[in-house]
Amino acid sequence: MFVTFEGPEGAGKSTALRSIAERLTNTGHSVLTTREPGGGALGKRIRQMLLDEGSVSPETEVLLFLADRANHVESIIEPALHENKIVLCDRHADSTVVYQGYGRGLDLEFLRNANRFATKGLVPNLTFLFDLEPEIGLERLKNPDGSRDVNRLDREPLEFHRKVRAGFLTLADEEPNRFVILDATKAPSALADDAYAEIVRRLGS
Amino acid sequence: MFVTFEGPEGAGKSTALRSIAERLTNTGHSVLTTREPGGGALGKRIRQMLLDEGSVSPETEVLLFLADRANHVESIIEPALHENKIVLCDRHADSTVVYQGYGRGLDLEFLRNANRFATKGLVPNLTFLFDLEPEIGLERLKNPDGSRDVNRLDREPLEFHRKVRAGFLTLADEEPNRFVILDATKAPSALADDAYAEIVRRLGS
Repeated sequence: MFVTFEGPEGAGKSTALRSIAERLTNTGHSVLTTREPGGGALGKRIRQMLLDEGSVSPETEVLLFLADRANHVESIIEPALHENKIVLCDRHADSTVVYQGYGRGLDLEFLRNANRFATKGLVPNLTFLFDLEPEIGLERLKNPDGSRDVNRLDREPLEFHRKVRAGFLTLADEEPNRFVILDATKAPSALADDAYAEIVRRLGS
Repeated sequence: MFVTFEGPEGAGKSTALRSIAERLTNTGHSVLTTREPGGGALGKRIRQMLLDEGSVSPETEVLLFLADRANHVESIIEPALHENKIVLCDRHADSTVVYQGYGRGLDLEFLRNANRFATKGLVPNLTFLFDLEPEIGLERLKNPDGSRDVNRLDREPLEFHRKVRAGFLTLADEEPNRFVILDATKAPSALADDAYAEIVRRLGS
């Protein structure tokens, strides 16, 4: 089972992911937690390269993220799925379509095709969308709890984050069976409870 | 004017490129010579990353080459063209279509779209195809003159190189105005003469 966690920074994805991984492990499941970008060996180097080189174009950046995804899927995610692990991944292909496509205006159809090429057609069985009004998400990031690096996307104007939210909701609307929308204004423990319950329900069916 | 040099290793592309650059410079033209992969700052790091990481999938590799191309076009080639330089580039987008598409069997239409995305639609004004039977090219590589690293592609079986040659000839057939096919069994000086004459002819028209 391949589960992805999508939504803006500050919505509680990583916290919920860790909590769910712990509960699944405690109930005897074999779990792999990972993230994009940077979940694989190549991804860490790509991340460092982008930090060192400073600004590159959106086209260059997204092609690097896609290379990271291809390598991450083949070297980390696919092997874990073959071992029947539950893979929980913090951001995946949907983030590329939403941030680079809906957000930055790169060609949506190309990005969808490029995701399909990079993942060799692997699509998550379940995707949690942590939905949050941009105003709330950005406010949370202004008061960082120290566990998070404020990144370049966080510094984009509000209008960008509105497009991102609308993009995520559009994708969820297109694939209602894959997406489960969570109200990220809820308390972290309630969010984790909801997501965990949904995974258990799908594991049973 | 953006001129690319395509064809197999051992066909004399780099030698001809250097000779033509010298003659154009001597006749008062402003020239930039470059190459792919690795012509830009990002490309050198990607090259090193691939060497360090060992084997990656064809999908990961081609996405890294495309990221290198996007960065190379935006940071090196486009600025030089804006300064009215003649840009001579050793390998470019056609190599991706031919080696990864015709050679390794990756999706041709995706690779063409990905090239368009990476170059933002920039296409060479003129492409020299150094055409050579694979048997002759491989024989030349067995007797290296020390100026060339034998790379992974050179170690592919003959059948791969036959597909590559057929791929290049197909592309040339599709765009007869852009491509000029050169018989790479000719002497290096004759090849450079032919290519130089063609550039001069096109500069004049």
